[in-house]
Amino acid sequence: MHEGMNQGPGVFISFEGCDGSGKSTQIARLADKLESLGMRPLVTREPGGTPFGEKVRDLLLGLESPNRTILSELFLYAAARSEFVAKVVRPALSLGRIVLTERYTDSTLVYQGYAGGVSLQTIEMINAVATGDLEPDLTLVFDINNPHILEERFARKVKDKIESRSGEYHEKVREGYRELARRFSHRIVVIDACQCLSKVESAVWEQMVGTLAKKGYDSIKKRN
Amino acid sequence: MHEGMNQGPGVFISFEGCDGSGKSTQIARLADKLESLGMRPLVTREPGGTPFGEKVRDLLLGLESPNRTILSELFLYAAARSEFVAKVVRPALSLGRIVLTERYTDSTLVYQGYAGGVSLQTIEMINAVATGDLEPDLTLVFDINNPHILEERFARKVKDKIESRSGEYHEKVREGYRELARRFSHRIVVIDACQCLSKVESAVWEQMVGTLAKKGYDSIKKRN
Repeated sequence: MHEGMNQGPGVFISFEGCDGSGKSTQIARLADKLESLGMRPLVTREPGGTPFGEKVRDLLLGLESPNRTILSELFLYAAARSEFVAKVVRPALSLGRIVLTERYTDSTLVYQGYAGGVSLQTIEMINAVATGDLEPDLTLVFDINNPHILEERFARKVKDKIESRSGEYHEKVREGYRELARRFSHRIVVIDACQCLSKVESAVWEQMVGTLAKKGYDSIKKRN
Repeated sequence: MHEGMNQGPGVFISFEGCDGSGKSTQIARLADKLESLGMRPLVTREPGGTPFGEKVRDLLLGLESPNRTILSELFLYAAARSEFVAKVVRPALSLGRIVLTERYTDSTLVYQGYAGGVSLQTIEMINAVATGDLEPDLTLVFDINNPHILEERFARKVKDKIESRSGEYHEKVREGYRELARRFSHRIVVIDACQCLSKVESAVWEQMVGTLAKKGYDSIKKRN
């Protein structure tokens, strides 16, 4: 087992990818499916997930929030993350629950590192402190290789501070995620998020079943 | 010159010590004196000093702020500090100004480290990232060795979140500062803050004059 993996009970899964890639939709579908099989997944997101984290989220993502440096962004995410791990993720995992989170440490490596220019070594060190080295069992990266799909999705909603950035920025984000998937191939799987929703859903489910089996859960079929 | 010292123009001085030790009063007196000699000191404080930092300050010190872990405190201070150094301290120093700050990196070593239990190595690493290794030219630690003085001062004002902590906590803070003064004796001077205000003021001024001379400023007398 890779160092840093969650070795306790419970299953910890993070969903990553650029804004508009469909993470929230697929997390909701997966949670529904797990519930229909009698499980009680915990659905959460970063930054946020705690009252304190939601305040930090407002500070980070609000269009009204004062401009700040990339380093201060990095530390704000770390502040929210350390709360999130201590108060939400670890307690749920210790009860054997499945935790599904929208965004986690890889987001920081990609947005503040690959796209923001902070050294990856610095970010990894800060992530390690904030999480006490807790790695997900599985990370699904939702990849969009067609910029028109993103443009269409963004046209439908008000952009937040991070979504307002340029196309070049989004390209760096995409490349960052793909690079991480190569580095951390023991836990990261890239999913083609340009496919129709039901195909993405199947791909997510396939990974979920594999991870549950690896973690020694009864097979899904038996539980059903 | 010690690694990390401010080697550019300008003079960077931090004021440290527990709440109620008289830092704000003495900074104001020192600033008045410098102004009367024709200098334009920049008086600031941490966390705060920038619009973003003031928001973080509210989150950290407000009694209404949601409870948070010591690690998230550490990262919030780092977020405010990286802004503070990049947008306030470095620009002022590069113009050759004297920067007087109430609290800086030593506060984090003391409150989250010695008193809060986070490893000093972790804090030093995070401080180094947040400040780009910028150390003060001089740090004045206001030491109160008589708990009755603090009790009397606190009785006069509403306590904020950190001031509300126990006497044992304050003792750890005091010991932490004294330990730092031994470790970083090249820049930290402990001042007996139980003395009357004018004696403290003289002690501060003596250190200020010495630091200006070391940094190659014209002697104070000549400028006057």
